[in-house]
Amino acid sequence: MRRLAISAILAAVLPSILCPAVKDYPIQPVPFTSVKFQDAFWAKRLETNRTVTIPFDFRKCEETGRIDNFARAGRLMEGEFRGIRYDDSDVFKIVEGAAYSLAVHPDSSLDTYLDGLITKIAAAQEPDGYLYTARTINPDKLPPHTGVVRWAYLSQSHELYNAGHMYEAAAAHFLATGKRSLLNVALKNADLIARIFGPSEEQLHGVPGHQEIEIGLVKLFRITGDEKYLNLARYFLDQRGNRNGHVLYGAYAQDHVPVLEQKKPVGHAVRANYMYSGMADVAALTGDESFIRALDGLWNDVVSSKQYVTGGVGARHDEEAFGEDYELPNATAYCETCAAIANALWNYRMFLLHGESHYIDVLERILYNGFLSGISLSGDRFFYTNPLESDGKFGFNIGKPERQPWFDCSCCPSNVVRFLPSLPGYVYAADAGGLYVNLFVTGEGSVQLPGRKVTVFQRTLYPWDGKIVIALHPETPLAFTVRIRIPGWSLNTVLPGGLYRFDGKSPERPQLSVNGKPAGMVLEKGYAVLDRSWNPGDRIELVLPMPVRRVLADEAVAADRGMAALQRGPVVFCLEGADNGGDVLHLVIPDDTQFKTRFESSLLGGVQTIRGEALRLFPDGREGWTGMNAVFKAVPYYAWANRGANEMRVWLPRTAERAKESFK
Amino acid sequence: MRRLAISAILAAVLPSILCPAVKDYPIQPVPFTSVKFQDAFWAKRLETNRTVTIPFDFRKCEETGRIDNFARAGRLMEGEFRGIRYDDSDVFKIVEGAAYSLAVHPDSSLDTYLDGLITKIAAAQEPDGYLYTARTINPDKLPPHTGVVRWAYLSQSHELYNAGHMYEAAAAHFLATGKRSLLNVALKNADLIARIFGPSEEQLHGVPGHQEIEIGLVKLFRITGDEKYLNLARYFLDQRGNRNGHVLYGAYAQDHVPVLEQKKPVGHAVRANYMYSGMADVAALTGDESFIRALDGLWNDVVSSKQYVTGGVGARHDEEAFGEDYELPNATAYCETCAAIANALWNYRMFLLHGESHYIDVLERILYNGFLSGISLSGDRFFYTNPLESDGKFGFNIGKPERQPWFDCSCCPSNVVRFLPSLPGYVYAADAGGLYVNLFVTGEGSVQLPGRKVTVFQRTLYPWDGKIVIALHPETPLAFTVRIRIPGWSLNTVLPGGLYRFDGKSPERPQLSVNGKPAGMVLEKGYAVLDRSWNPGDRIELVLPMPVRRVLADEAVAADRGMAALQRGPVVFCLEGADNGGDVLHLVIPDDTQFKTRFESSLLGGVQTIRGEALRLFPDGREGWTGMNAVFKAVPYYAWANRGANEMRVWLPRTAERAKESFK
Repeated sequence: MRRLAISAILAAVLPSILCPAVKDYPIQPVPFTSVKFQDAFWAKRLETNRTVTIPFDFRKCEETGRIDNFARAGRLMEGEFRGIRYDDSDVFKIVEGAAYSLAVHPDSSLDTYLDGLITKIAAAQEPDGYLYTARTINPDKLPPHTGVVRWAYLSQSHELYNAGHMYEAAAAHFLATGKRSLLNVALKNADLIARIFGPSEEQLHGVPGHQEIEIGLVKLFRITGDEKYLNLARYFLDQRGNRNGHVLYGAYAQDHVPVLEQKKPVGHAVRANYMYSGMADVAALTGDESFIRALDGLWNDVVSSKQYVTGGVGARHDEEAFGEDYELPNATAYCETCAAIANALWNYRMFLLHGESHYIDVLERILYNGFLSGISLSGDRFFYTNPLESDGKFGFNIGKPERQPWFDCSCCPSNVVRFLPSLPGYVYAADAGGLYVNLFVTGEGSVQLPGRKVTVFQRTLYPWDGKIVIALHPETPLAFTVRIRIPGWSLNTVLPGGLYRFDGKSPERPQLSVNGKPAGMVLEKGYAVLDRSWNPGDRIELVLPMPVRRVLADEAVAADRGMAALQRGPVVFCLEGADNGGDVLHLVIPDDTQFKTRFESSLLGGVQTIRGEALRLFPDGREGWTGMNAVFKAVPYYAWANRGANEMRVWLPRTAERAKESFK
Repeated sequence: MRRLAISAILAAVLPSILCPAVKDYPIQPVPFTSVKFQDAFWAKRLETNRTVTIPFDFRKCEETGRIDNFARAGRLMEGEFRGIRYDDSDVFKIVEGAAYSLAVHPDSSLDTYLDGLITKIAAAQEPDGYLYTARTINPDKLPPHTGVVRWAYLSQSHELYNAGHMYEAAAAHFLATGKRSLLNVALKNADLIARIFGPSEEQLHGVPGHQEIEIGLVKLFRITGDEKYLNLARYFLDQRGNRNGHVLYGAYAQDHVPVLEQKKPVGHAVRANYMYSGMADVAALTGDESFIRALDGLWNDVVSSKQYVTGGVGARHDEEAFGEDYELPNATAYCETCAAIANALWNYRMFLLHGESHYIDVLERILYNGFLSGISLSGDRFFYTNPLESDGKFGFNIGKPERQPWFDCSCCPSNVVRFLPSLPGYVYAADAGGLYVNLFVTGEGSVQLPGRKVTVFQRTLYPWDGKIVIALHPETPLAFTVRIRIPGWSLNTVLPGGLYRFDGKSPERPQLSVNGKPAGMVLEKGYAVLDRSWNPGDRIELVLPMPVRRVLADEAVAADRGMAALQRGPVVFCLEGADNGGDVLHLVIPDDTQFKTRFESSLLGGVQTIRGEALRLFPDGREGWTGMNAVFKAVPYYAWANRGANEMRVWLPRTAERAKESFK
């Protein structure tokens, strides 16, 4: 069964390599099923996801009625709808995550559980394919914002959003297990929607209020080859902002002007990033360059003025939205975990389109920081928002600044659970010329190149250490190009676009060698290019110096003026109360502070920490200030709040004057 | 059963008189059930409608599958939908007409037939109230323009249009028979639509592509007193042209700007006039003066520049639409029969709002001319379009210029059949002050005035003779005002607004007497006002001189320049080939022609005819013209084409020069 699944995946994801006539991304990912993590950083997070988070999330869905909703809609049990109209999507996302897990880690009890769950999902589907338990259970008693009839309130109902996550789940489940049980439900639903929505005057011309279905439809297209699904994805994108087709929902839902005319990212950040991802998919599969040009402009705008140093996007609590240029407050940063995931999905697609390493730079920044902060080390507590500063007392939207086991709107927990197990799929990619090495994780990958299959081994302590050893094992000697990403941070770039900069250039440069001999570093699109014939066992070594570096923000970012953040390798650090006597908001880190680092294996699951001298500054109660020397300790930002609610700060005052300003 | 029905009608239509606190038209019609025609003109048309047209129309509906469609939708029989998506409405309109007939003429076999038909209609209703056989029979095989799902294509689907006619039919059937069988179907449907459409964000915000439901909803409101129906009617009107709620359908459907901002009548004339009628109802029932001001402007525009001398409206074949100002071509006049009916409905409502006689002048012009031309004397042949000129060979949209037994789109035959039996309801009206006598028809009416019931007898040979005798029989002597319409034509006005004028003033004035004594003619709003105490048997005599008069059009009407039409009383005449050697298009009627009239009892069911001297003018084949004297004979326009296809002309050249122009 697994063999079938993997070959199905290969067939699904590598069409452009196996069959050049098919339009697709010029670069194809090496699927996560072909890459195994064996490292100390990610592998255990994925194992926690498998053993803790997946069962935990499913249990939460059961406790909160999310799964009973399907049974009720399917008349398998009595009762009213419980929860919020988009709760179905949480279940789909966890199924997607569980399917990914199942694809690489057989688990008959999980497999059986999914079968039972899918039985309920299938039962909830109405005869014509409609699936939306919030309406089906009792159409006379609808939860708020569902619309009095099908499709009446698309801007809010999430009917199409839920469907998109169902398609992603169905695609994952089919590819993982070879079973068509959920796929058939998805296709029946997609057939209905493809009949109802479209360009004909007879059809509905609305668009999803919350984008997502575009991504799901593309996955159905990849599995079935039926262009109907691709065309519908494209229709929803073309129709967006088109006032001839529907009454526009406005900028909140990126439905204010046609997508090709959207120059600035606006509105709800998750919706936006899912949309951009869908646009990239459609651009790749249709060859439409206009979408790509639009995406290039949007991407430049985000990295140049709207992305946090943690990779987080979506600054505003209000509407969970992008802010204005440089509107990047720290304590009130929204930075939804889902937005980080969506932004990662988009950046990876931008890489697949363009082959530029800076997209992976952004992706990596998200992974190690603004995404990973969204889930506790224990795997059963989550952040919905990921601020860059906290007084330890009051969090935004989530009450206290502690990770929560669940939310009424639990999009983030269910998004984490599906994104984590897909990470191995982001490590390698391939095009007609050869191999891309994008992420650095100890493990083993199997890469199908046009000529031959190549097994790739990596050994590294990344992100704590910058030495990476890559061993190539083509089946027989084979000439191909290896492109190794040289991270932007190792070349003194924080983010493309100059929103942030390192305080001084690092004197050390990355070093590359092949079979022990120094190799010239020829950079193309940010990749060190090694073009040669490779023998089994050939060994590439990359050394990325990892000093602690101070990050400064553009002066236009008011919140970060006079402040610095600490970064080492791809990891952004923070000060947390737990390591600093409960108080970090009064600490000043002068520019001449010397940093010392060590790896603390028993702290927070094993993390590098940074120490140095600081000034602790308090108002003296008589309009003056009292200062005292202090030693600070910084931990990786992603790991904060694993020790209860406490103070935290990423951006640190460089001077006493700046610190005093904070208290005004 | 009839007594119950009539009292129900009284309760339904006279709320403002019986209960002054209820907002409604300040003037209330005396229902058709309280007025009996006993004349030689209308009574026989109504009898033909009852005995010929109703059964004929039902038979056509059976032959064409219109009635089977209900049975099929109700799974009472197998088979696919036949016909066009709005065919259901034809059946509803015939039921409405049959119910009117039943109300005044008990007919157990018709009653039983309706019961059987209503069983099929009820079976066709989906469990939630939806009723639209075009979709219900086979949702996978929809006729064109129905929309892939419910409400998807409101601009074209006629889902709401059909519903409106169902409500009118249901109201009529309930009031006629006291049976709730069809009313329950209508209310269930209206409840569904009132749930789905409305101002809430959760609801749909579309409007009917073809107005009509507004009128129907008001009728349901009058019966049930449930403001939900009135509110929905108002919502559909407020929502029209509101681009915040839906994508506008454009001027064709009067959905280009909000109704209150519509200064010019545009687009499809039937839709427009149904909308104006609905606006008048809503204005009366809500007291909203803004609707009335909008209607006043629209009405002035129609009568001043867009109405034919026959009362017809909707000049253009293209989109069945109003033309520009003064765009009133004759041979290609569209003048749909349905538009005439809709315009009559609107004008009557304008009278009920304002109490001005000129609305009844327009109504009367429509009745005796542009409406009545739509149905043959035999009662089983119909005109869809009513041009003012024909070469006898080629009609527009209807093939040969002959009345047809039926059309694919048979809105007109089914509209005639419901409008004719309602005509007695237009004769009298009442307000708190007393009685209005609007139309002149021999017969008997029973009028409920605030103090007492009054029986009104009329004796007249109208429209062939202008002497009208009205005998009043209050139960006991009673003081009240009698307002008798003095027709505009008798005071030298063709239509309000000056679009047409009579060629010279008639020297004779209308004469009024009471109990044989000349009464002063005090005109208020066009009515001769007689305010006194009336004893049983008091007798009012009105004499309206009826010379043959020449009508000239404003010079701005290019088609009528140099032409004249003939009118006598309210009747517009035409020359028809059958009376003029087959040729009327070459006839010139010089201005000095003397007219002779006579009543020909054996011609066309008994008509007044006009004779005079004319010039017959032909091209001589050598760029010159040959003329000869001729005698012409004109017949009432409404009666043309009852003797096969032949030439016809309403507007006649006044000079040889003008006649020659016609042939260029």
